[in-house]
Amino acid sequence: MKNTLKLGILGAGGFTGQELIRLLSRHPGANLQYLTSSEYAGKNLGEVFPALATPTARDLTFAMHPQQLSDLPELDAIFLATPDEVSLKWAPLFVQKGIRVIDIAGAFRLKNIEDFKSYYGLEHNAPAALAEAVYGMPETSRAAIKTAKLVANPGCYPTAALLPLYVYRDLIDFTKPVIIDAKSGTSGAGGRKEKDGLGYSTVYENFRAYKAAKHQHAPEIAQQLGVFAGGRVKLRFTPYLLPMYRGILSTAYVTPKAGKAPEDFTQAAAAVREPFLRFKATVDQIELKSVQHTNFCDFSHLFDAETGVVEIVSAIDNLMKGAAGQAVQNLNLMFGFEETTGVY
Amino acid sequence: MKNTLKLGILGAGGFTGQELIRLLSRHPGANLQYLTSSEYAGKNLGEVFPALATPTARDLTFAMHPQQLSDLPELDAIFLATPDEVSLKWAPLFVQKGIRVIDIAGAFRLKNIEDFKSYYGLEHNAPAALAEAVYGMPETSRAAIKTAKLVANPGCYPTAALLPLYVYRDLIDFTKPVIIDAKSGTSGAGGRKEKDGLGYSTVYENFRAYKAAKHQHAPEIAQQLGVFAGGRVKLRFTPYLLPMYRGILSTAYVTPKAGKAPEDFTQAAAAVREPFLRFKATVDQIELKSVQHTNFCDFSHLFDAETGVVEIVSAIDNLMKGAAGQAVQNLNLMFGFEETTGVY
Amino acid sequence: MKNTLKLGILGAGGFTGQELIRLLSRHPGANLQYLTSSEYAGKNLGEVFPALATPTARDLTFAMHPQQLSDLPELDAIFLATPDEVSLKWAPLFVQKGIRVIDIAGAFRLKNIEDFKSYYGLEHNAPAALAEAVYGMPETSRAAIKTAKLVANPGCYPTAALLPLYVYRDLIDFTKPVIIDAKSGTSGAGGRKEKDGLGYSTVYENFRAYKAAKHQHAPEIAQQLGVFAGGRVKLRFTPYLLPMYRGILSTAYVTPKAGKAPEDFTQAAAAVREPFLRFKATVDQIELKSVQHTNFCDFSHLFDAETGVVEIVSAIDNLMKGAAGQAVQNLNLMFGFEETTGVY
Amino acid sequence: MKNTLKLGILGAGGFTGQELIRLLSRHPGANLQYLTSSEYAGKNLGEVFPALATPTARDLTFAMHPQQLSDLPELDAIFLATPDEVSLKWAPLFVQKGIRVIDIAGAFRLKNIEDFKSYYGLEHNAPAALAEAVYGMPETSRAAIKTAKLVANPGCYPTAALLPLYVYRDLIDFTKPVIIDAKSGTSGAGGRKEKDGLGYSTVYENFRAYKAAKHQHAPEIAQQLGVFAGGRVKLRFTPYLLPMYRGILSTAYVTPKAGKAPEDFTQAAAAVREPFLRFKATVDQIELKSVQHTNFCDFSHLFDAETGVVEIVSAIDNLMKGAAGQAVQNLNLMFGFEETTGVY
Repeated sequence: MKNTLKLGILGAGGFTGQELIRLLSRHPGANLQYLTSSEYAGKNLGEVFPALATPTARDLTFAMHPQQLSDLPELDAIFLATPDEVSLKWAPLFVQKGIRVIDIAGAFRLKNIEDFKSYYGLEHNAPAALAEAVYGMPETSRAAIKTAKLVANPGCYPTAALLPLYVYRDLIDFTKPVIIDAKSGTSGAGGRKEKDGLGYSTVYENFRAYKAAKHQHAPEIAQQLGVFAGGRVKLRFTPYLLPMYRGILSTAYVTPKAGKAPEDFTQAAAAVREPFLRFKATVDQIELKSVQHTNFCDFSHLFDAETGVVEIVSAIDNLMKGAAGQAVQNLNLMFGFEETTGVY
Repeated sequence: MKNTLKLGILGAGGFTGQELIRLLSRHPGANLQYLTSSEYAGKNLGEVFPALATPTARDLTFAMHPQQLSDLPELDAIFLATPDEVSLKWAPLFVQKGIRVIDIAGAFRLKNIEDFKSYYGLEHNAPAALAEAVYGMPETSRAAIKTAKLVANPGCYPTAALLPLYVYRDLIDFTKPVIIDAKSGTSGAGGRKEKDGLGYSTVYENFRAYKAAKHQHAPEIAQQLGVFAGGRVKLRFTPYLLPMYRGILSTAYVTPKAGKAPEDFTQAAAAVREPFLRFKATVDQIELKSVQHTNFCDFSHLFDAETGVVEIVSAIDNLMKGAAGQAVQNLNLMFGFEETTGVY
Repeated sequence: MKNTLKLGILGAGGFTGQELIRLLSRHPGANLQYLTSSEYAGKNLGEVFPALATPTARDLTFAMHPQQLSDLPELDAIFLATPDEVSLKWAPLFVQKGIRVIDIAGAFRLKNIEDFKSYYGLEHNAPAALAEAVYGMPETSRAAIKTAKLVANPGCYPTAALLPLYVYRDLIDFTKPVIIDAKSGTSGAGGRKEKDGLGYSTVYENFRAYKAAKHQHAPEIAQQLGVFAGGRVKLRFTPYLLPMYRGILSTAYVTPKAGKAPEDFTQAAAAVREPFLRFKATVDQIELKSVQHTNFCDFSHLFDAETGVVEIVSAIDNLMKGAAGQAVQNLNLMFGFEETTGVY
Repeated sequence: MKNTLKLGILGAGGFTGQELIRLLSRHPGANLQYLTSSEYAGKNLGEVFPALATPTARDLTFAMHPQQLSDLPELDAIFLATPDEVSLKWAPLFVQKGIRVIDIAGAFRLKNIEDFKSYYGLEHNAPAALAEAVYGMPETSRAAIKTAKLVANPGCYPTAALLPLYVYRDLIDFTKPVIIDAKSGTSGAGGRKEKDGLGYSTVYENFRAYKAAKHQHAPEIAQQLGVFAGGRVKLRFTPYLLPMYRGILSTAYVTPKAGKAPEDFTQAAAAVREPFLRFKATVDQIELKSVQHTNFCDFSHLFDAETGVVEIVSAIDNLMKGAAGQAVQNLNLMFGFEETTGVY
């Protein structure tokens, strides 16, 4: 374990970047030295994000994105909170240089490069790095993360949906379709910019599904369900935009394996020993307020005997457990810190 | 057709009452004469609801709830926007007196009085009136409504969920479970009072399911699906509270009948000729903003070939099509007005 | 009085345009025949604004903005809900052609063309039309509006602030500064587009002043206060952006004339006989909810004997009394309809 | 300086209590040992406030309010986040027992007990304690706080309004009225309970003044302005309720002393050396988003030469700088910690 890590964030001007800065500026083992932002290059952190302007952080200056590897200072690890194509280009180069990478973009999550092309619209030109990349969900892949050079931090919807399905994985009949109906605040549904569809007058007092036919998190969820199931899983995934800012609440409708009873589900949930997973007695108790600004994932289930459907509800803060919080968990694992350091 | 109907509203001080007043004060055939409210008795409409204080309405005075039938003026019809037990008591009496009743409470929706007792916590002591009551969904029961003495105006969630399922009813395999995941603004989830759970600080920037295990609209939806299907239908129904005010968006996951193809669903939808049903090309186009302050129900479907799931999304304004607007549609049918009068 | 007016709206695709369409499609004397929108040209109203798609309106088609006068159909009047420079160009041409104009932009409000240049950044090249234009606030200029060919519909902040100051005008010492602290929802603070500063994540759960040093409504308010006072009035005007959609609440701090007592203010307020002005007993009763979706201006005052300050609070719906509703009032006056027709 | 303080919170179940728990569970010198709540007595912190349930805090149990002094454990200091009458009763007893008190209620802020009776409706029966109490605004009273036994933590509106007025105090003509127009989110305007007036449907998409004629923070502000001015100051204070949760933005309109120029104000602001005060170049830059979840007070001024009015705008997070954050600042001063410890 190194005492103080030299850290950087590529693309530090967005929502996830802000949250990372907030977490790392309180982390006892972190020394944040390098922030890039095309929009804010040359400006002080305190000027750009007044709410983050603590004495230890406010004098950090945003740099331009690097043009070449030699533009970077010496770093132990770098977080990529960048567009997918930027991650795709730079992550392998950083790894080659010996900088461990936590990629919060989607460039190294899908193992199937056909899916990647279809859902991200990009050719995957770094198959070797992709083969080495570890899917960075600590609860399911802790050992591999510890030694990984390139961690693909999971998407926000996949994090919300997969964690409880992992808990119940041995009780679910994965030969039947899995239906996921997931609702997100605006900070999870787009960047910090005021893009089409995220203006105040179109989001406020409104609610709708978006990308129901094809969202890039669908193949990511299906891929990991396939790992749990040991085979291909059929998934219907629909994301919605809530008229609020922060959090994802995901409802999964699954079929229990033959012979599995309500108490089996309760036992599986109660047996969990994870610092950030919390089982609640009823699905009505899962709410966004309880997880906002935290790294927790709250979950519960409802076993509906009449229909033979088990309903699994989970909630996360998309910027914490769904992005920056999980990324710091991964950092801790990679460098031998207590996993919860700086994340509570 | 009577030229000008003498109308009353029992329980006119709530959300639905307000909306009814707004609609009826513009309806060319309506003469609103009698409003009751335990809270506002003795006050002028203009004082209680400043936004409704048009010249024709502002001098109406709220009366106390009646103690006996003779407290009522002569009326052609009365709307009950009252608690269920109040409707249960008064509706049969009004009908006996020759006043036609549109009950917006839940007292005469469930034909099975065991279900009524279980879900509403009340003994149904008016089985004769219940047997005569017509479920007031114009699109499915137009003829019966025209001659009904007692119309049970549908619940808001049932209205949102059932209308598109009626459109697609011949294409759905109702032997398989129907899953309904329905999201409502606060005006549909409770009364005008600041009850537990509807305070600003618990609703704002929050989202959660409520009554997932047992909501009184579940048996109502199942009952009407049973009518469509010609037999018992298994339903998993989960309502959620959105951090906003107005509207319900409902997503139903169903199984198509064997051999039914995407184009069958599109054809069924395109064939609809209803003044308030609007088919949109994709489920992403169904949004609350497009139906707020209107009586429309927008809907669409997504046929997912991989999973064999058909996803049906619909949206209504819960206070209009889900309550007062549909009630005025029913009034129009009952008294021979054009069905859309005063509702557009 | 013409029985049915042939009407057009230039720039019908914005917030004000929508509200005008809603009002005019219910107005018994209006026949809306011509809508232009650069964005929606060629599309049906029903497609663009589903919530407005009543049977009488949904088949209207948006036209391109005119290139020349001959592109227009025959019209009795036209509303301009356009950028200022578009109004400046077209209004005089329409008037010449005999079409009466209600300009909802700011091109003909300021009589001083130096102020116009300074605040709007435009040379005023239509001084003759400007000289003829009538400031379209019915409560202060009813007679002149009736015969006007070009009505300059007041700005939303000026409407909210000026109406109560007009009521109390004889009691205020206008040689002392007038301070106006005015708070607006987002629909009053910008267009329908998702411009910088009106994205969800910058408006939601936020509050701030904007253009405090120089807002184009300041000289408009000062000009009209000058009319009330019979001389130049010094004004400090600060607008703020509320995290909500609809309404303006304005607080004015003024100095009473020597010898004027609290009862003088109450008497002046109680003496008002205007269909859309409503005096409330206390400033705490002035709220946006009471005026939303209406054409009312609610107001009250607080006479603070200790400081010698009178605080005057007023509220309007910026899209109604602050734009489209007031415009229809003006139309009614111009063409001999009852002033309130189609506006309640 | 004691290494680890034994701390308690009386009334820990409200908004301020939650924020204090959050801050103190991260404070390196704090050992939070005693929490009381009439509502949550007997429950675990983790059960009541899931978002606060860190490993160090989640097993704390809420106790009943004490009946007698002997019910308390040994404590170095106690925070009172209680109703005013509870503070009034207990604070003197705690002080007598040697426990230093930080009272976040209003019982010891007003030195004039007539005002206290008039504004709080309570007889002040602890005049000796009141005489000893120190107004706990570190920027204005740092030395006295260090040795105080009883600190009266300032109200949220007074904190927002007074801090910049203190900065500019030598430039303001305090013989002229001071007008303060202050806007607060709901967490500053009431408790956590869903009281009348704070229900979702009355706050959402609404805005209004409240208690404009008589708010208990008016005499508190006037008292402290009197300290700055060395004499009685006349104040017009109006608070408003924003449709949001967190933050207060306050606008003060003052008269500059004769001969004072814009640059005098800028110099005074730029000369400030306070860890939590931040001067911005324009009043448009003062916004709630920049201070939420922080202990900062951002401020600026606009010198309006035409009217002779100086407009001073400031913003705080009412639960942080306006309550719990300032309370921890005070704790730090009282016990010799760095003033910013645990507050950034």
